[in-house]
Parts: sequence; structure tokens; C-alpha cells
Amino acid sequence: MPGLSQTRVLRLERDILDANDARAAETRAVFQDRGILALNLVSSPGSGKTTLLTRTLADLSGQVPLAVIEGDQQTSLDAERIRATGVPALQVNTGKGCHLDADMVARAVATLNPAAGAVLFIENVGNLVCPAAFDLGEAHKVVILSVTEGEDKPLKYPDMFAAADLMILTKTDLLPHVSFDVPRCVGFARRVNPDLAVLQVSATRGDGLTAWRDWILERRASLPGSTGERAAS
Amino acid sequence: MPGLSQTRVLRLERDILDANDARAAETRAVFQDRGILALNLVSSPGSGKTTLLTRTLADLSGQVPLAVIEGDQQTSLDAERIRATGVPALQVNTGKGCHLDADMVARAVATLNPAAGAVLFIENVGNLVCPAAFDLGEAHKVVILSVTEGEDKPLKYPDMFAAADLMILTKTDLLPHVSFDVPRCVGFARRVNPDLAVLQVSATRGDGLTAWRDWILERRASLPGSTGERAAS
Repeated sequence: MPGLSQTRVLRLERDILDANDARAAETRAVFQDRGILALNLVSSPGSGKTTLLTRTLADLSGQVPLAVIEGDQQTSLDAERIRATGVPALQVNTGKGCHLDADMVARAVATLNPAAGAVLFIENVGNLVCPAAFDLGEAHKVVILSVTEGEDKPLKYPDMFAAADLMILTKTDLLPHVSFDVPRCVGFARRVNPDLAVLQVSATRGDGLTAWRDWILERRASLPGSTGERAAS
Repeated sequence: MPGLSQTRVLRLERDILDANDARAAETRAVFQDRGILALNLVSSPGSGKTTLLTRTLADLSGQVPLAVIEGDQQTSLDAERIRATGVPALQVNTGKGCHLDADMVARAVATLNPAAGAVLFIENVGNLVCPAAFDLGEAHKVVILSVTEGEDKPLKYPDMFAAADLMILTKTDLLPHVSFDVPRCVGFARRVNPDLAVLQVSATRGDGLTAWRDWILERRASLPGSTGERAAS
């Protein structure tokens, strides 16, 4: 860009990411200390993250302590949907920002104060680009892709699919009505991330929700220091 | 963020936007000089932008000169789909970036060199946040929202809907299979932008494409200095 020093831009970007990583490391230590499993849910807008999350909270409720941090540019619509399930939720508005950062999450965690042994869902701003670069202290990034979005997305937004440990294909009830080749999409995703786990769900119809719940509970049971039974609520 | 001066971040952000606006003004002057209508298509990933665009190019082909700039983080898949229609297209990869900027577009315009009187479509990176702030020299931003994404998006990503002159609701053939209240969505969008025009299309079934083509041709005919007939190809 004319009139701007590229060095100046790159230096600031590096400083921002370094400061973010340091803050995320502090939060990760808090999570480990309390046996909290934090999952960072990322996707484009409208992938069905919040619908899947409300179903998941209902499925896990009574089995483990739960908490939710909701990121959005504006509104607290999603936090209201979550609180309707009875789970404590805090909305973080990012304003002009296209992602949550580690400092926002650290402050939200201090306010929410999730119970020891909790599963904490962090629903990031709907965006397939920006959240990829920002560690929030989570154990895993989970990328959510709806079958209405097209199977080429892992190639077009590779950073996000490379950063995730699990891809959930949502809205599978719509597969008969759209052109979406599941094996092709999974192939594209594993081209950028050979170790990516994949689940298919329909939150509306209930398909695949047991496998997703099991994935969460296995990750929680295998946290360092977990007894696998600690803090059943 | 600890360890970072907020003033330093804000100053750089302002400098970036100022440099971008200056470059966009130069490109806008080129477009006006040549009677080119430039449309900046913005949406989240998977809204059906490229499918709508290929249909639109087929509809306009032979009536007016056409050109396309394709923005994506990675891949040239979309430019290949566009070139298959016979329209000149240039792919711009943004790498880590979440939007096209005015300098990228200025360089692409210099290479593509669209004919006088052309309609130039700029397909931005799939992202409902970042592209809102970056003027590319276009006449209009057109925000595309598919009915599978949920009607609350204009409230959750208000900057984009405030910056656009037209909202196109796509994939209306899927309305029977999803929970999406069109009047409610339009109401939300007009809450952030009372002057927003709205069209509904199904690129698969062909619904609404005539109204969209007419919208484009009317905007082109009303460009300053246009005869309404200039440069019919």
C-alpha cells in the first residue's frame, strides 16, 4: 500500500500475535490447573454453530459442568439463546474486530469462573479467516462447516482447517437438496491437515450428536490430571 | 492486549485505511473515465457468490463487456469457474488477509484492462467482517446472504449491511427446507440500513435473475456520462 511501510505493518502484526500467545498461555495454565476442557468453535457465519451448541449443551447437561463464551461483532442474541438452556454464558462483542483474542477470553473466564472439570465452549466470531491465527488458550479448535457452503472451503481457507483438530459437517439433513460431495470435502480438508478428525451431524434431526458428545467426553477424560470422573455435577 | 500500545495499533489502523481510501479514489476516477460499473460482491464463505456470478455472466454476455476480479485466501478455483464462461478473470490471493484492498484491485484493473462501458465484478474474500471497511473504488457494495445462514446476520454483522447498497438473498429454492423468515431478515437489514435494496434469487432454479440483471443494467445506464448505449459489445 503506497505511503505505508510494510516493515511497520509486519512488526506490529508480529507484536500483536506475540502478546496474544503470551496471554493465551496464561489462560491455558488456568484451564489445566482446574481440569477445564476449552473448545474454540470456529466457522463462517450461518454454519449452524449456535444451533449445534444449544443441542450439545442439552445433551451434556447434568453430566458435566458447562459454560459458554459467545463472540460476535454485535448483539447478544446468541448468549440469550444459550442462557435459555440454563448454562452460564457471557457475550463478548468485538465491535469492528473479526475474531476473539486471548485477552477478551481471559477476562471472560475471570468473570464466568467455570467450575473445575467444566467443558467451556468458546463460540468465536463467524469468520473462516481471522480466528485461525489467534490462540485463545483452548485445548482444541473445532471447525464447523455446513453442507450448504460447498466442499471447496478447506482449500480456499486452508489456515483454519490446518489449525483445527476436528471438523464437524453440519446440516447433513440438507444433503439431498444441495450439491455437496462429503468424501471430496473430507479429502480436501485432509490435504491441508492429514490428522483432522471428522464428524457429520444434523442438529435438527439429531444425527451424529452421540459421536460428538463422546468426542468431547473422551477429550475431557484424557486431560492431564483428570480422573475421568472428577467434578461430575 | 498487555505489552502493546493501543495508541500505536489505532494509529496504524487509521494510516492503513487512509492509504486505502486514497488508492480507491484513484481507481474510482479510472472507472468513471471509462464508464465502467464496478460492483464489490461481499458475503460469508459459501453464500453462493460464484454460482450466482457465473449465471449472471451468462445472462449479460453479448450485451455488455464483462470482467471479473476474484479474491480468495488461496486457490484459483473460482477464477477457473469464471473463465469457463469466456469472461476475462483475474485471481488475487490474499494469503493471510481477510479482504481485498484498493491496491490489489488497482493492480488487477491495470492487468485486466476492462473495456470502456464494462461491468466489472469484484468477488471479495468470503468474510462478513473485514471487507466492510475497505473501499476498492467500486460504485456499489452488494452483500449476498443465503437463506441457509439464518435471518439474524444483518444484526450480528451490521457494518457490512450498512456499507452495502443491495442485499441479495440467495438459495431461495431451499426455503422449504430451512427455518428462515424473509420479511424478518429484511426488517433486520433495514434496521441497520434503511435504504438497502433487496432482491431474492435462486441461481440454481433461475428465480429472480432478471430483476438482478435489470438492477445492474440500470446502474450502468445511470453512470455519469453514460449514454445508456455506449459500448454495447
